[in-house]
Order: sequence, then structure tokens, then C-alpha cells
Amino acid sequence: MTKASLLEILAQVQAGEISPQNATDRLATLPYEDIGHTRIDHHRALRTGLPEVIYAQGKSSAQTAEIFARMAAAGTDVLATRASEEIAEAVLAAVPAAVYHPQARAVTLKQSADKAREGHVAVVCAGTSDLTAAEEAAVTAELFHAQVTRLYDVGVAGLHRLLAVREQLADADVVIVCAGMEGALPSVVGGLVGVPVIAVPTSVGYGASFDGAAALLGMLNSCSPNVVVVNIDNGFGAAYTATMIARMAHRKRE
Amino acid sequence: MTKASLLEILAQVQAGEISPQNATDRLATLPYEDIGHTRIDHHRALRTGLPEVIYAQGKSSAQTAEIFARMAAAGTDVLATRASEEIAEAVLAAVPAAVYHPQARAVTLKQSADKAREGHVAVVCAGTSDLTAAEEAAVTAELFHAQVTRLYDVGVAGLHRLLAVREQLADADVVIVCAGMEGALPSVVGGLVGVPVIAVPTSVGYGASFDGAAALLGMLNSCSPNVVVVNIDNGFGAAYTATMIARMAHRKRE
Amino acid sequence: MTKASLLEILAQVQAGEISPQNATDRLATLPYEDIGHTRIDHHRALRTGLPEVIYAQGKSSAQTAEIFARMAAAGTDVLATRASEEIAEAVLAAVPAAVYHPQARAVTLKQSADKAREGHVAVVCAGTSDLTAAEEAAVTAELFHAQVTRLYDVGVAGLHRLLAVREQLADADVVIVCAGMEGALPSVVGGLVGVPVIAVPTSVGYGASFDGAAALLGMLNSCSPNVVVVNIDNGFGAAYTATMIARMAHRKRE
Amino acid sequence: MTKASLLEILAQVQAGEISPQNATDRLATLPYEDIGHTRIDHHRALRTGLPEVIYAQGKSSAQTAEIFARMAAAGTDVLATRASEEIAEAVLAAVPAAVYHPQARAVTLKQSADKAREGHVAVVCAGTSDLTAAEEAAVTAELFHAQVTRLYDVGVAGLHRLLAVREQLADADVVIVCAGMEGALPSVVGGLVGVPVIAVPTSVGYGASFDGAAALLGMLNSCSPNVVVVNIDNGFGAAYTATMIARMAHRKRE
Amino acid sequence: MTKASLLEILAQVQAGEISPQNATDRLATLPYEDIGHTRIDHHRALRTGLPEVIYAQGKSSAQTAEIFARMAAAGTDVLATRASEEIAEAVLAAVPAAVYHPQARAVTLKQSADKAREGHVAVVCAGTSDLTAAEEAAVTAELFHAQVTRLYDVGVAGLHRLLAVREQLADADVVIVCAGMEGALPSVVGGLVGVPVIAVPTSVGYGASFDGAAALLGMLNSCSPNVVVVNIDNGFGAAYTATMIARMAHRKRE
Amino acid sequence: MTKASLLEILAQVQAGEISPQNATDRLATLPYEDIGHTRIDHHRALRTGLPEVIYAQGKSSAQTAEIFARMAAAGTDVLATRASEEIAEAVLAAVPAAVYHPQARAVTLKQSADKAREGHVAVVCAGTSDLTAAEEAAVTAELFHAQVTRLYDVGVAGLHRLLAVREQLADADVVIVCAGMEGALPSVVGGLVGVPVIAVPTSVGYGASFDGAAALLGMLNSCSPNVVVVNIDNGFGAAYTATMIARMAHRKRE
Amino acid sequence: MTKASLLEILAQVQAGEISPQNATDRLATLPYEDIGHTRIDHHRALRTGLPEVIYAQGKSSAQTAEIFARMAAAGTDVLATRASEEIAEAVLAAVPAAVYHPQARAVTLKQSADKAREGHVAVVCAGTSDLTAAEEAAVTAELFHAQVTRLYDVGVAGLHRLLAVREQLADADVVIVCAGMEGALPSVVGGLVGVPVIAVPTSVGYGASFDGAAALLGMLNSCSPNVVVVNIDNGFGAAYTATMIARMAHRKRE
Amino acid sequence: MTKASLLEILAQVQAGEISPQNATDRLATLPYEDIGHTRIDHHRALRTGLPEVIYAQGKSSAQTAEIFARMAAAGTDVLATRASEEIAEAVLAAVPAAVYHPQARAVTLKQSADKAREGHVAVVCAGTSDLTAAEEAAVTAELFHAQVTRLYDVGVAGLHRLLAVREQLADADVVIVCAGMEGALPSVVGGLVGVPVIAVPTSVGYGASFDGAAALLGMLNSCSPNVVVVNIDNGFGAAYTATMIARMAHRKRE
Repeated sequence: MTKASLLEILAQVQAGEISPQNATDRLATLPYEDIGHTRIDHHRALRTGLPEVIYAQGKSSAQTAEIFARMAAAGTDVLATRASEEIAEAVLAAVPAAVYHPQARAVTLKQSADKAREGHVAVVCAGTSDLTAAEEAAVTAELFHAQVTRLYDVGVAGLHRLLAVREQLADADVVIVCAGMEGALPSVVGGLVGVPVIAVPTSVGYGASFDGAAALLGMLNSCSPNVVVVNIDNGFGAAYTATMIARMAHRKRE
Repeated sequence: MTKASLLEILAQVQAGEISPQNATDRLATLPYEDIGHTRIDHHRALRTGLPEVIYAQGKSSAQTAEIFARMAAAGTDVLATRASEEIAEAVLAAVPAAVYHPQARAVTLKQSADKAREGHVAVVCAGTSDLTAAEEAAVTAELFHAQVTRLYDVGVAGLHRLLAVREQLADADVVIVCAGMEGALPSVVGGLVGVPVIAVPTSVGYGASFDGAAALLGMLNSCSPNVVVVNIDNGFGAAYTATMIARMAHRKRE
Repeated sequence: MTKASLLEILAQVQAGEISPQNATDRLATLPYEDIGHTRIDHHRALRTGLPEVIYAQGKSSAQTAEIFARMAAAGTDVLATRASEEIAEAVLAAVPAAVYHPQARAVTLKQSADKAREGHVAVVCAGTSDLTAAEEAAVTAELFHAQVTRLYDVGVAGLHRLLAVREQLADADVVIVCAGMEGALPSVVGGLVGVPVIAVPTSVGYGASFDGAAALLGMLNSCSPNVVVVNIDNGFGAAYTATMIARMAHRKRE
Repeated sequence: MTKASLLEILAQVQAGEISPQNATDRLATLPYEDIGHTRIDHHRALRTGLPEVIYAQGKSSAQTAEIFARMAAAGTDVLATRASEEIAEAVLAAVPAAVYHPQARAVTLKQSADKAREGHVAVVCAGTSDLTAAEEAAVTAELFHAQVTRLYDVGVAGLHRLLAVREQLADADVVIVCAGMEGALPSVVGGLVGVPVIAVPTSVGYGASFDGAAALLGMLNSCSPNVVVVNIDNGFGAAYTATMIARMAHRKRE
Repeated sequence: MTKASLLEILAQVQAGEISPQNATDRLATLPYEDIGHTRIDHHRALRTGLPEVIYAQGKSSAQTAEIFARMAAAGTDVLATRASEEIAEAVLAAVPAAVYHPQARAVTLKQSADKAREGHVAVVCAGTSDLTAAEEAAVTAELFHAQVTRLYDVGVAGLHRLLAVREQLADADVVIVCAGMEGALPSVVGGLVGVPVIAVPTSVGYGASFDGAAALLGMLNSCSPNVVVVNIDNGFGAAYTATMIARMAHRKRE
Repeated sequence: MTKASLLEILAQVQAGEISPQNATDRLATLPYEDIGHTRIDHHRALRTGLPEVIYAQGKSSAQTAEIFARMAAAGTDVLATRASEEIAEAVLAAVPAAVYHPQARAVTLKQSADKAREGHVAVVCAGTSDLTAAEEAAVTAELFHAQVTRLYDVGVAGLHRLLAVREQLADADVVIVCAGMEGALPSVVGGLVGVPVIAVPTSVGYGASFDGAAALLGMLNSCSPNVVVVNIDNGFGAAYTATMIARMAHRKRE
Repeated sequence: MTKASLLEILAQVQAGEISPQNATDRLATLPYEDIGHTRIDHHRALRTGLPEVIYAQGKSSAQTAEIFARMAAAGTDVLATRASEEIAEAVLAAVPAAVYHPQARAVTLKQSADKAREGHVAVVCAGTSDLTAAEEAAVTAELFHAQVTRLYDVGVAGLHRLLAVREQLADADVVIVCAGMEGALPSVVGGLVGVPVIAVPTSVGYGASFDGAAALLGMLNSCSPNVVVVNIDNGFGAAYTATMIARMAHRKRE
Repeated sequence: MTKASLLEILAQVQAGEISPQNATDRLATLPYEDIGHTRIDHHRALRTGLPEVIYAQGKSSAQTAEIFARMAAAGTDVLATRASEEIAEAVLAAVPAAVYHPQARAVTLKQSADKAREGHVAVVCAGTSDLTAAEEAAVTAELFHAQVTRLYDVGVAGLHRLLAVREQLADADVVIVCAGMEGALPSVVGGLVGVPVIAVPTSVGYGASFDGAAALLGMLNSCSPNVVVVNIDNGFGAAYTATMIARMAHRKRE
């Protein structure tokens, strides 16, 4: 979408030729900014409620920094996931206001106004090794305006640790559970709460964990029917969907 | 939980010895009715908001009918999934008010009072062969008080069919998408809507579909971040979680 | 081992030519009774402490009955696993004193003298669909002189059911846990007890359970270090090893 | 094939002892130049219409450069795929007229006369990370005299991007579609066009993408019947076959 | 698409309100006939050049017959694949002019006028057990107006059989090769011809063939770059694409 | 190869126009008898030393009987493997002199003259359930003139059984070992003998045997370097190769 | 568990308000020391009889050293597994009394009083490449007070090596068997002894060993019923359970 | 086996107390030289006809060199496979007469007297990338006294290259075929020769070759019944068995 086309639409609104509703629809379907290697979808937020996000893995530092800067220039919040330290440095050089979260491997830029948290997301993880996925989820949900409660290292082999945080779980509108190895935690959490549980299998483990496949299969076969699953290590995707859900719950309470 | 223990608790409430809140907590954690082969969890609804459900596959007709009858006697709505015709007959013999949905392979018993639908679930499927999973989802969501819109046979190879139902999609609080073969539909739907998409891979296909594994993998790797996944053919689980989400959305609008 | 060779050895003992200890050693390593299609290992008990067992699957009714009868004639306890009803009928026709356990798919013949139970084995299962493996384990352990406590339908999605049997778990010298689907139960049980847990993945489930592979992988990746695993649906093998362990524990208490 | 054998054949043609048609047949089946580690098939073009190509991966820089130089000396166009920068340097040192395409990891040498493009190949890819396979396809097709249209970053999660290039797609005689993750793009493109679609799964993704296996399976199960598939990341093979097809289409229009 | 909407469009053409070109475009994108369980896409031929086809597996006899009859009523050629004898009987009862091809498991209805064959497709198979896939391909290509040459039982273990049909191969515009077990035939054929080879792995084999997966992997790894692959046993898809290619080759020769 | 072409060649020999050596070569490369669905390779024995064999699985009773009869008419020994009882009946009706071996699922016809056994093949199996593959191997090797020693039910869990037959193993020129479950037997046998061991994984087992895949993998990873492997349940292939080897060993002793 | 809460409990015991038994129970279920990234479970020994252990892989050197030091401060024995040299250095810098076992990749700290060995564990391995897993098992069992006999390099391809250590095997209360490649050794050992065998598949091998998966599958399918299995390379888990078993056997002899 | 025990046996022979035959038997079963980490089996040649070989991968340079030197001191030929350059240097430092073959990754020491080649092994490979496995096979067979013919780069996509070496193939007593990618070459070679074919799948390929698994599966499913298979990249094992076979063939000719 070029500035020219934007101007034309807005001029038509001003002239009363098209209604604001009509203009919104057109903007939502007008495509993207084409910067050669990438078509940036500035209007994703209009269509789906949340901004497009940069998946940095497989992109060069230069490419990532350029896309990040373009999005930053559009005035919205920006998130880059799977960002190595090298990529993060390139992004921060281009956009000094951005923040790097090394445990989460994420770079964020907060430009939206502060407002009340919209809904409550609990992020649970089984062991200290699952922190990468858990923090990716937590950082994402926080940028998307959710209130986040972190409940870490509460694996099923020491059930008393999990039971000790039961009340905090009960407060959440949606729970993200990150676990590697046998991936049993979401089933147990799912039986304790009355809200959706988004399970994130992690690649933590060795041998027959097959890089997270064992945890993934375990979660897909959960006997708790309120468990849904995302890809291995996909803390971002879990938080994206969790934020959508939490927002609904939040608004209902208002 | 025996009647005796129930009476005791209620008597304590009456006597003011315990508060109603306290009694609710105890009921929610008091376990189950033990009928030998099965421990029925009558109080699941108190804990998780939705009743326990009978997974009939691998149970005998007699076992299923007995559990169904016990739950029916408790006065709640009852659902049995994966019920063959033979099992359905046994259930209906025991509980004549129950209804069999052959396409969905489900038996339902509606005992709760009618009330307004709580939230809106769209159930989308790619081809006529995916109807089993889709109907299991639809029947489940309807029993759980959601408004359900069925959008069937809108696979990605004929995109105009999907685009033709775009407005109906936009109305939903959450979308369930059932697809076999390559499992591409959830990604496409995910890009069109601003709400969570619960993807149900189906075992429809042949050869390299590996009984639904190809669709499952496709959905787990979706490039749409609002897509979460359940087990192959698990229409019930998708609807269970979708209902939780839709209920939140519904209440916010009131 | 023919009667002739047996006689020869015993005659040598009588004549003082070989010591009883020596004779025992020779009998333990003398091989088997060759009945054409099978070499029956009557002396396995001498070598390993527990009798050889008939794995009936893939054998004809006639073959199974013949082997069973030969073993019965040797005066020991006999066990045939994976016995269909048809096979069981053939065995019972040949050995009327045998007993068929349909849920366990096992035929047993008790010929040893009654004695005190040697050790305590708890058999736990997650759902009613796991009963086949659980009963195979329970029937086997009982035939091998262990005391068996059955704790069924205590899956992790309703944790209160499991916590309700915690004391019974604490009494066991070894715990067998049968679970399909995500196979999470052994990890949770493993964290609750201070004895070995033998995990039996079952083929219960559908879709991404891949006939028990998901449960198997989950158990192999258990975060509880006292969990060891046997093949899918191998209730017999679990009980065989559990009995060995329970016997040690039992004898220590004497 | 030695020079001597070539001379002999040509002498026979000159002498009228064999017809030119006959000589062509013999040349096409006369084998190869044996340079020790490799048998170079100079006559592949006669048999199959397109030259043999060097697959550089697993060959040393020296081996690759030697084979490349031999082929260059034969006067034909030459292509080396999967060439690392180090290999490319060795080739360019040996054959300075060659060109390295780093994004495509390919080295090309154009020696044939310029002529009109023979047919039209569209190369489509889902994301910026799929560029390696896409560029390998594009560079190959261009060397083989096809007209190539690049349509990049048009993944299914933002359908409007794809619909925006619909007319360009409609112009192609054959479409190559490169996609990783869920591999859904070929199905969608297949439904939009009336020509063959060659799907190239890419190894782009993480977790349950299993290095491209998920995309591969998705494409093999495509519900669009005009989709055929090549190996993961095999942009070259896709372009090789696409060029054969485009050439047919091109000639029909003349 | 209802008759009414069709009439309206045609009336507009008659009245000169829209041009024929414009009407064609609208018809091509107007969707489908909705018969409840299925949305029939009568206009697929306008968009992609070949009619939609009924995949009968997983549909009931009644459903298949109804869809077949609707398509027949539209006056086009009709094809149903994966049709059991039972389904075929139902279709023939509804549409007596249809023909059942039991080896190919296909029902066809020829309603288009006779015309010259458009291009030449060779269908090759490795053994007599591969005939099902091969015949599905051959019957499909013939219905779609291609000239078909069947070259059966020419597996690679008896190379002389394949070399004996080499001239017939050389005549084809495109070759379909069906093979199970090790799936080596497409590579060998690919080296012999200068046209695209569409490889169809078949589920013929046992043990480590894993129902065709071995053949599928073999074909995907073909060292002949003109080999592209479709799903296991997907003779139809191979023929669909082959017909598109053959048609191009045919037209160029006119 | 028709009778006519055969006569023509033989007439040329008689007339001295071609030498017998020349005629042999032509017969060996003249292809086959084409009976429509199958090209029978009567001359395979000339090329490879052993006759072509009918793989009956996936062929109809009528097809198998027809091919069997044609081969029988050619005067050679004939073997059909994977023959169900129904197929065997059809073959015996057509060729009454044929013999059915039900345990081996094989039909044989012995027409060659009796002669001394050529080499010595030991066929070893781990359990009674492996008899099908073992007997297929034994029957094949016997038809191909090898001396066969059957050593059955000597699995590794009772090592004394195997050690008891050690001398018989030492006599063999080549050993075929059939084993399911963990497939450990070939490694142990391989360490005991100084001749090639051909390992046949069998589909005997359950759960994580994955229909023989576990045994197959075990054998491929054997730490005994004289172990080579064939497909799961492929007793025929093992015997085919073993006979070639035994024949070499046999002739050396003459 | 904070010091305060500990003091409170002990004060209550002193005051006679709670019994020592009651205090023990409460301490065993009081949870953990929360040090931010990890919740240390000091009381695991009270619950399960063996201390919690640090799995160092995936933790930083600093994290590991901190947890190790905290545990050391609690006065118990401490074990860190999967410790790289770098991690080991960090731990030894923090806790100089700790010992690094490079072959086992383990760091141990012995603080408990010397006492008689409790039971006898034999650790067997197939080849020199399996030493890592074997030593992890041996070091673990020794720290946990078991007597350990190492029997290394006794693979099944040279059976005489294994038979030579048969007497040492017969002495053990439980046997740990580590093997890669085909994983056959546990089955053979299982047939020789009358005690539980804990099989540890190792990732030793190449090609079709698939990083230990072949050995794992072999062990799960063992025909010796006293074989149980742990994850690939999980020497620690095997020793943990073996120690529990050996302790039982030990006490019985006292 | 210590020197002492050796001396004792030989003294008994000298004294006529045991026969030479008896002494041979005892030596063949007397075990090994125990050097701590490894038990060297000097007498393997007596038992199996070929010496034990060092698999260097996973051993340190020092370990490998020590074992190599011990074997060299025993006066036999020695072979170390999978030897990196670093390991080779250590071996050559210890045993200067040893030779490193870098392409084969093997170190050999020839100490046996020269003698006529025993049998003829052809080593065939599909592409230049398969040279590592092929050379490992060739070097091994040569050390074991076989005559070796190398036929390289004769893949199935250029059939004329293979047919050009047909006569050389016909001369071999046994053929080793190394191929990656689709692994089709052994099937084609198997149909051309009348001797055993030992197929070596190589890890050459990418994507769906899954590190050689595709080639492995292809070879296991070969339609040529004289094809047997070894592990991926196992050129050594193929040559070991091939040498056994060739020796038999050789001796028969004498």
C-alpha cells in the first residue's frame, strides 16, 4: 500500500464519497508495503486484531533490522522473535528504543499508549530448561497488553510444587503450559482449571524425546479436553492466541 | 461421592456450620462415584465449567449404557462420543430420552433448561469426507449451549467457495476447522479472521496422508499464529475448548 | 531333556557319583523338551526363579493347548498370555483345572501349594480402557505369589482421584502403571512413591497416539527417575519383573 | 566417448556409410568421458533435451572445478548447483566467464546463443526464507531459456497478497511453488490456475516441520490434482521439468 | 450457482449490458451448486481446463450417485475414482450410460463429442500388481482426450523388457510410471526419455515397503531430474497433470 | 518369446548359420512370453542361474494358476510364494503335480532330475511364531537343490538351546536366521560361525515391534560383520541368495 | 521451604503439639527452596528415598554451580549429570570438595557417612563406545551406596566374553546393561540371570541406528521378560531405579 | 588370553597330552586379551575365518592406536575403519608400517604373506559422492585377499554407463553396490548378474533421503531376489561378507 493510495482513500472519505466504514474495509484488504524481499502487512492488525510479527530465524541481521525499522516507522508496537544476539544488535542499532529479551530471544518495541491490562494469562513451565519457550510466550503476551503471571519449575514429578500455585492458576483466563520430555504437565493443569490450556511442547530432552516430538505427541493425546497444542517451542504462537482469548475474558468483566 | 456424604455436607450448610462457599469447594474436590470399572466424576462441571464426557470407544455397550444412565440420573446434560450404532442402541434402551447423531457418532441427552446461546462457534470443513469430525464438533458445541454455524465443503482448491462464506466467518467468536489430506484450510482461515482457530486434522486421505499425520503436521506448522491444534479426528476436544472461548466472548457482549 | 537323561542324572546322585548341587547345576543347563515345533524349557524356574510362560498370540489353539498340557504335566504353575476365547477353550478342554481370565486374556493353572504372598505389587491404570493390560499384569503377579492391589481409573486429568489412593500406593513394594494416550500417569506416580515404577504404555487412544507409541515415548522421557518402561500392552513383562522386585522386598521384611 | 570414436562416426557419415539420423542415434547412446572419478555425459542433451548438471554438494572444490571446466570446454551451457562460496571461487578461477548466484547457491556459464525465451515459468514462494530454493529454480529455468516471473512472499496467511498476483500467475505455462512450514501454498495456487504446478517443499521451519517433511507430506496430499512434487529444497529439479513443459507450451503458440 | 443467476447473467449479455468476456469471467468465479453435503463446482473446467472429479472413497453409494447424476445432468464428462463395486452399481443405476472400469476402480461418463486425441501419454508399470494405479491413470487420461499407450510389467530387475519398449517410450509427450517396492523404475525411465516423467508410487509390497512409503521416498530422491512425484496410488492425479502437459505438446504439433 | 521365434533360432543352429554359443546368448536376452497381464521370463535361469518365481500376493487365483501352468509347461521347476489356500487350490487344480506347503505358504513343482544336494543351508529361527518365514526359506532352498538343516526355536533368551545346536551350525555353508521381536539372534549366530549369515526379520511381535521394523533395525545394526539382511518376512529372498552361496561352497568341495 | 517454616514445625514438635511422625509427613510435603529460576526440592529424599539430582544439560555453568552449592549447603550428597567440562569447572570452583568423573560426565559430592554397601549392582556394556552411559550408571549407583561390579566390552558377537563373566553376573541383585547398535545384549543377559535387568540403549552406532532408536526398539521387544528399559543414554535413571531394587535385596540378606 | 595360558596349552600339545585338534578348539574359544577398556579377540580368525577389526569412530586416537599396536604385535593383518585423519596419524606414529587410505577412511597393516587373490569382488557405485563407502569396501576386500574390480559412477539415470561395464560385472563372484539417493542401482545390477549382490545404502542425498534411509528402504524392497543389504555406509560389512563368498567361489575353481 503506497501513500498515494492511502491518500486517495482518505480524500474520498473527506469528500463524503465513501463512508468511514467502507474506507476501513478497503484499508484492511489493501495489501502491503513491498520492500523487495518482503511484503510488509501493516494492516494485519485491522484484519486480525494483532500486528504482524517478524520471525527472525532464517533472515539476515540486515533484513530483520530493515523490516523492524519499517514497522517501527508505522508507529505500531513491533515484535521480532527467534532473534539471535547478533540480530538483536542490528535491530537496536537501527531502532534504539527497542528492547532485547535474551532469555526469550525476542526484540520488542512498545509504542502504543499505556492502558489497563486486557485479560490474564498464566505461563507455566515444567523445568528450568523450558524457560526459553516460556519467556517467549510471556514477553509476547505482555507486549500485546495481557497481564502475565509466571509459574515456573512446577513439573509433575514433584506435584506439591504445582499444587502450591493452584490458586494463581485459578485466576487466569487462559493458561500457557510449556513442557519438554514427556509433556505431561498440560494434562495435569488442564484437570485443575476451567479455562483453555495452550500446550507448548519444548525441545528440551534427549534420546527418545526426539527433539520435542515425544512431548508434542503427549500433549496431542491429552486426556484433558481443554488442552490445545501448538508447534514445538512455539511460545509466540501460544501467546498470540492466548492474548486473543484473554482479551475476550477481560472485556466481559468490564 | 455417595448420597450420604452429599447429605452430610448439605446438612452442615443448613446448620450454618459451613458456609455455602466452603461447601462448594468441598463438593468440587470430593471425588467421584465408584461403580467398579469406572469412577464417575459428577463434579467436573463445578471444577472446569463443563461436564465430564463418555469416550465410548473401547468400552462395551453395557459399560457405556451404565455410565450414561448414572450421569443421566444426576440430572445433568450427558454426551457420549465415538459411539457405534450398537452402543447407541444400548444407551437409548437405557435412557430413551437420549438422541443419537449418526454422522457425529455421538449420543446426547439434554436436561438443562433452554437458555440463550452463549457465544458463536463456526465449524468449517474442507470436504464432505471430513463431516464426521465436523459434526462431532458441532453437536458437542450445541449441547454446551453455543450457537453453531456449519460451513462445509469449502476446501482451499476452490478458494471462491471459502471467500463466499467470509462474512459468516467474521461473525464467529472462535472457528473450528476440520481438514484432512494436506490440512491447509486452517492456515487460510486463520489469515481471514481475528479470533482463535482450532484446527482438527482428520484421518481423511490415503497413501502419504498416513491416517491424518500429514494434516496434523501441516496444522502444527501453520504460518497463521492464531491456529492451535488438537488430535486427529478430535472434533469433541476442539468443541470443548471452543465453547469455553465462545462463552467468554458471549458474556462480554452482554 | 528326556526322561532317560533325567534318570541318568538322578541315578548318579543316588550312587554318590555326583553331588546334589552338581546335579542341580546340570539340570538347570540341560536344555528342554523338544516337541517338534517348540522346545519347552521346563527348567527356566531353576535358572531365573520364575517359570517359562506361553505367549499364545500367533500360535494355533492346538499348539497352545499341547504346550500348556505338557507344562501342566510337569507339575508347575502355568500361564498362557494373549489367549483368545477360542484358544482358552482349547486349553481348558485339555486341562480342565485351568482358569480363563477374559479381561486379562490369560489362562492360568495353579498347582503350587498355597503360601504367604511374597511382596506387594500395586497395579494402577489411567482409564477403564487400559484394563486389559492392567489385568494381565495383576493376574500374572498373583499367579507368581505377589499380593496385588488394583487402583483403576485414576488418570491425571482428575488428580483428586489419584491423590485419594495415595496411601495405598505408599504400601506397595513396586508399582505397575498402565496408561495410554499421553502416558503421563507414571511420571506423576513416580513422584509420589519411593519405589520402582514399571510403566506399561497401552495402545489405548486414537490418531496421534499411533497405537501406543505416544504413551511409550512419554514414559521413556519421564522426569521421574524411578520409572522404567516395557513394551506397549506388555502387562505380563511388567508383572514378571515386578514380582522379582517385590519378592526381594518381601524377604527383607521377614 | 573419445575423439577417435567421434571421428570414426563422422567419417562414416561423410562417406555415406551411415545416415546422419543413424549417427545421431549412435552418438546419443555412446557413453561418456571418463575422467577417473566421474564419467561426464556430454550427450545427455541429445537424449533428454537438457544438459547434465553438476551437483556440487559432496564434491570437493577441485573435483567440481575440473568437471565444470570439462563441460565448459565442450561448448555447452553449464550449471553447478549447491555450490558453496568456496566451491564457486574454485570454479570461477578455472572458468572466469562463469557467474555465481549466491542466493541460489548456483554457478552458471552461458555459452549458447541468445534466443527468444521458450515458454513462461512462474516461480512463487511463500516467505522470504524460501528464497534459496526459489532462486535455484529461477536461475536454472533462465539458463534453460525460459522466461521467468518471480512472485515472492505471497503465503496463504495473507491471502490478499496472493490474489494480488493472480493475473501474473494466469500468464504462466507452468508454476513452481516453493513453501516450507505447512506447505499449503501449492494447493491454493493449484486451484487458481489451469496449468501444472510443481511443488518444492523447503526445509524452512522448526519443530514439527521436521526439516521440510511436513511441507513435503502436505504437498503430496494436495487436494488440487494438478500439483506434482519434488524433493525437499529441490528447486533445480522443479525448474528442469518445468522448462520441459514450458518449452512445449511455447512452441504451440508460435 | 442457481439457474436464476445464470439466466440473469446471460440476459445481461443478450442486452449488451455486459460483454461475453465479462460474462465468462463471472461464470468462472461464480461458485457452485450447493446440494447440502457437497458444493459441486460445475465451472471448474472454465477455470482450470479440466472438470472436477468425484473422489468416491469415504462417500456413501447414495452420495456418490447423487453427485454423479448432477454432474451428468450438466452435460459434461464425469469421472468417479476409488469407486467400489457397490458404489459403481449405485452410479450405474442412476446414470445407465456410465461405464465401470473394475481394474481402475473408476466410473466414467463420456458425453463430449469425439475429437482427435490431444497429445500422447505413456503409462508404464513395473509389475502386474501395480495395475490398479496404472489403469486409474490410463482411464483418466483417455477420458480427458489423450492418446494412451500402456507398457506394463517392465520392472528394472529384467532390464531387457524395458529396453524392448524403448521406442514406444520415445513417442510419448509425457510418461507416467507406476511402481511399488523399491520404486526404481521412474529413475531408469527418466534417463531414457527427454520428457517429464510423473512417478506414481504404489502400495504394492510388504514389510519395509511400509505401504508404499519406500517407493515414494525412492522416487522423491530420483537422480533423474525430470521425475516429479504424486501421492501413493494416485494414478488419477498423475493423469490429470499429464493430460495438461500432453495437451500443450499436442497443440504445438498442429 | 513365441514358439515361432524359438524354432527360428534353433533352425538356424541346425543349419549352422549361428553357433550354439550365439544361440544361447540370444535366448538369454530374448525377453519373455507376453500373456497380457504378465511378461513371463522363461530364460531368467539362463541369465541368473535360478528360475523366476511367482509372487502370488496381490495376484488373483486365476492369474497365479495361469502363470504357474505356463511355467510348468516350460518344463522347469516352479515356485509360487505367498500363496493363500485359495490360490493353492487353483494352482493344484491346474497343475495336479504341484505341492502345497501350508506353513510356508508356498506351492512347488519339481520337474528337474534328482541330483546330489548342492551345498548346505542351515535355517535357524528364534521362536515357533517365526516358522512361516523359516519354512518359506527352507522350502525354497530345497527346491533349488540345497541340503537344508532346520534349527528351530533357539531364541537368545535361552542361550543353552542355541549352544546345543552349535555343531550343526558349524556344518553349514551359509546360515539363514529368522527372528522377530528384538531380532538379536543373527548377531549371536554371526559370532559363532565363519560363514555368511542372512538375517530375515519377521513381523512377529506386538507394540513397539512395529510389524517387524524393530527386528529389521536390530539386524541392520548387527555388531557381527558377516550378517546381511533382507526385507521383513522375506524367507524366499534369503533362500534365493543362500542357494547361490551354498552352490559355490558345494562345488569347491567336489 | 523457608527456615522460618521449618522452625515453626520443629517448635511444635518440641512443644508436643504435633508428633514427630506428623512433622515428618509435613516436611515431606512442604515444597522447596525457590531460588528464582529453580525450586530446589530438598525433601525429595524423605518422599522417595533418594535425593533430587541436577540435570546439567541445558543449564548454564552459573545456574548449575548455584544449585549444586545450595544442595551442598543442605548437607546431603549431591550429583550433577550431563556436566560438560566447563560446567564441572564452575561447580568445582564453587564446591571444591566435589569430584568430576569425565567419562561419566558427572560431578559428585559425598557428604554422607561411610557405611556398608547396600546391595549389588552389575553394570554391563557391549562395547568400549558404550562407556559413557555405563560410567554414568556406575558412578550414580556408587554415590547411592550400592556395590558396583563393572563388566565391560562383552558384546554378543563374541559370546565367550560374556560367558566368561557369568559368575559375576550371578552375584548381582540387579543388572544394568548398556548397549548401542542392535541392542541385543540385555536379552541375552536376561536369559542368564534371575534378577531384573535394566536396559540402557545408547546412541552408539551409525546409519540405521538412528541415534539409538534401533537399540531402544530392540530392548523394548526383548524376549526376556525380566528386561525393563529406560531412555537412550539414560545411565542415571537406570542406576537410580537399580539402587532402589538393590537396597531391597541387600536388606533381605541382613 | 595370557601368554601363560597359551604356553600351558602348547606344552600339553608337546607332551602329547592333548591333540593339536583339541588345542585348536581350546584356543578358538579361549577368550581375549583384556587391556582395560577393550577385550581384544585375537582368535576371531580361528573361529570365523577373518580377523577382528577396529571400529575407530567413538574411540579416542590413543585408544585406537593402542588396540592397533596390540593387534599388529600379534602378527596378523590389521584394519581400522572410520578413522579420521587425526586417528590415522596416531596409528601411524605407533605402527609406521601401517597405511592410511583417506577416501576410505581406513588404516591397514599388511603382514600376511602374498598369495593369489581368493575370488573376485566387483565394487560398483552410483555416483562420485558414494566413493567413501565404495572405497571402504574395496580396501577391506583387498586386505582380505580378494581381487577387486572398481566400477564407479554408473548410476541408473544413464543406463548406458552401466551397460558398458556389463562384462566386467559378469566376471565377479559377488558384487557390492553402493548407492545413495533412491538406491535403485542394486536392483538393476541384480537383474544383470547371477551372483549375490550386497547392497550398501549411502547417506548421500538431501531432504527426503533422510540420511540414507530412503536408499536403505529401496534396497530392502528390491525386486531382484539376489540382493541382500547392510547398514547405511557400511562398506566394511559388505566387503567382509563378500570376501567370505568370493573365497568359496575361488576355491571351487581350484
